[in-house]
Amino acid sequence: MPNTRSTNRLKPSLFRVIDITYRLFWFFRTYYVCPRYFLDVLFSRLHDFGFRGCTSVEQSLIGGCAHLLNFSGSDTLSAAYYAQFHLNGGLPVATSIPATEHSVMTAYVSEIEAIRAVIDRFGTGVFACVMDSYDYVAALEKILPVVAQQKLAKGGFMVLRPDSGDPADMVLMGLRAAEKVFGTELNSKGFKVLKGCSVIQGDGVSYSVICSLLTLIQDAGFSAENVAFGMGGGLLQKVHRDTLSFATKLSYVKYANGDVKQVMKIPQTDKAKISMPGELDVYRDEQSRPTTFPRDQPPPTESPSLLQVVYDHGPLPNYTWDTFAQIRARANREWAAAPTHHNAISTLLQQKTATVLDGLRKGLVECNAENR
Amino acid sequence: MPNTRSTNRLKPSLFRVIDITYRLFWFFRTYYVCPRYFLDVLFSRLHDFGFRGCTSVEQSLIGGCAHLLNFSGSDTLSAAYYAQFHLNGGLPVATSIPATEHSVMTAYVSEIEAIRAVIDRFGTGVFACVMDSYDYVAALEKILPVVAQQKLAKGGFMVLRPDSGDPADMVLMGLRAAEKVFGTELNSKGFKVLKGCSVIQGDGVSYSVICSLLTLIQDAGFSAENVAFGMGGGLLQKVHRDTLSFATKLSYVKYANGDVKQVMKIPQTDKAKISMPGELDVYRDEQSRPTTFPRDQPPPTESPSLLQVVYDHGPLPNYTWDTFAQIRARANREWAAAPTHHNAISTLLQQKTATVLDGLRKGLVECNAENR
Repeated sequence: MPNTRSTNRLKPSLFRVIDITYRLFWFFRTYYVCPRYFLDVLFSRLHDFGFRGCTSVEQSLIGGCAHLLNFSGSDTLSAAYYAQFHLNGGLPVATSIPATEHSVMTAYVSEIEAIRAVIDRFGTGVFACVMDSYDYVAALEKILPVVAQQKLAKGGFMVLRPDSGDPADMVLMGLRAAEKVFGTELNSKGFKVLKGCSVIQGDGVSYSVICSLLTLIQDAGFSAENVAFGMGGGLLQKVHRDTLSFATKLSYVKYANGDVKQVMKIPQTDKAKISMPGELDVYRDEQSRPTTFPRDQPPPTESPSLLQVVYDHGPLPNYTWDTFAQIRARANREWAAAPTHHNAISTLLQQKTATVLDGLRKGLVECNAENR
Repeated sequence: MPNTRSTNRLKPSLFRVIDITYRLFWFFRTYYVCPRYFLDVLFSRLHDFGFRGCTSVEQSLIGGCAHLLNFSGSDTLSAAYYAQFHLNGGLPVATSIPATEHSVMTAYVSEIEAIRAVIDRFGTGVFACVMDSYDYVAALEKILPVVAQQKLAKGGFMVLRPDSGDPADMVLMGLRAAEKVFGTELNSKGFKVLKGCSVIQGDGVSYSVICSLLTLIQDAGFSAENVAFGMGGGLLQKVHRDTLSFATKLSYVKYANGDVKQVMKIPQTDKAKISMPGELDVYRDEQSRPTTFPRDQPPPTESPSLLQVVYDHGPLPNYTWDTFAQIRARANREWAAAPTHHNAISTLLQQKTATVLDGLRKGLVECNAENR
């Protein structure tokens, strides 16, 4: 049972934290190189491409919903459906656009015929087209100029999608080809914005790839808003229990005779695995940052406990769960207010940990001496 | 729908192949350094510790069942239950032993009291004890000698479990401490086997860790049978779609007018992503190895197709699924007979691929020329 609970609780926690690292990165990055309005489209910059790589539909749903707390773009239909109809009273949570992939492209007699069909059908809105079915360079240099008039006549927004090769090369190649065909204008920060076109990189994307790509794009004079990212395996699969060393540990025992013990795991061979002793609680500290404190000492501020009991030998009767929109709004508010660095273990708890640690070590030495 | 099917099919395929790499490694490794009888205990050498790290119960069940095709040891109760009661008519599939973890150990007033309680309760059989709650070295050097008489009096088999620090150091330290306390005897290959004791490494285990650890153990004069491995994240979580570049691709189109097209994805920027053209089939080749052939050419041997339709717009009515035991037996038989290296793409299919590739490229060049 503890394992089952740990299992079901694990992924959303991980995702929320990992997603937000991307989100924050985007925020700070774009703050300096893009006009203010770009912050509004931040939500669509990291798209969930992860469904087909998932172990199971349940995994896609859990991870996909966690992603949707911080971003709006998702092709993981299971999560989009669940978030909308089971968690948000039917109100839409996720967005996406018409997009091609290789089966569609290669099913046509030729690539140019496939692209013409896509523009014909979806060209009045935002649509994405995978460009590497046969030869990415040829698609950019030979096909794109030929279909440009048709695309312009339709009036929509075309997203070019490379899907193989070095991400940095492919994205820059796409930006430059699109600039040549459709042109750019400068935004208020002096960076180039493509006219009616952008690039989405959805292959081999990771946190470090996003970081280095944004630097390269900026160095090439393009605004970050020209590029979005799609993540598949990296978003829903390459995240595991070790990613943030997530673990649930025993911290406090009340024996049948009424005695209590502050429990700690203290492996000498890996100090990162040392756990916290005693009953714990989470309050806001003096600067309003959520922080873990020992429960047996008075709270440091007027802040009430941030922990809530929602499950006690079963779900609580009459407990009203927040809607997805409420959780998303709270996550946005909290993360926006959160500092970039904060030790969430309070000084009080650090002091108590040191004291309990000393006591336990003394006890262990005595115990070893006794038994020799 | 294609994505849903791909998702549900992915993990078992991956697991089966990855598990078998471990299995084969063990096989060859142990063949040279252990007596023949060790092959019988091979099935218990890689234990599934992965439940608590899983994204969802469904993932634990799918990955855990796949692992059980090749090994018998599992603490993933969801998979053990499902394999036994839903796939094998109630007949047991998985095995495990009584084992402690840190909550149990640290809940006692002292570590030695915890170990005494474990021996008292489970000491007549095989049981495992985690040894690093406070100080692994002290547990081996101070506690183990003190509890040795109690353990010997009970007559069972004690498995020592380090759980932090460098796996190689921890395992060798465990083997040497156990040798000092319980002694060893030489097996028929001249390697030391601990008396009534062994070590299980269940932290930071990966394929490369297993390889290097087995080499070190052998170099230190110990038989591989003294050590088992437990895998958590590495077994059920650090396996994803990119692990074996698993993908499902369109290969053949029959248009409404009756025309057909051999379809290939041919990204110039990543040749590893080139897909196979046309309808495909799997037959045994001249050396009885399962191999992929083009379906539009006569089979190379008398071998019937190894592909079976089990789902066609829904599960086939009246299809009888094999039991878990039948699948496990077939997997064992097939893997035992499989060569270590085999190109599963037949020469016939390689030739056809080259021909279709040429045709497509020629078509693309003509098409580009037309459109300039």
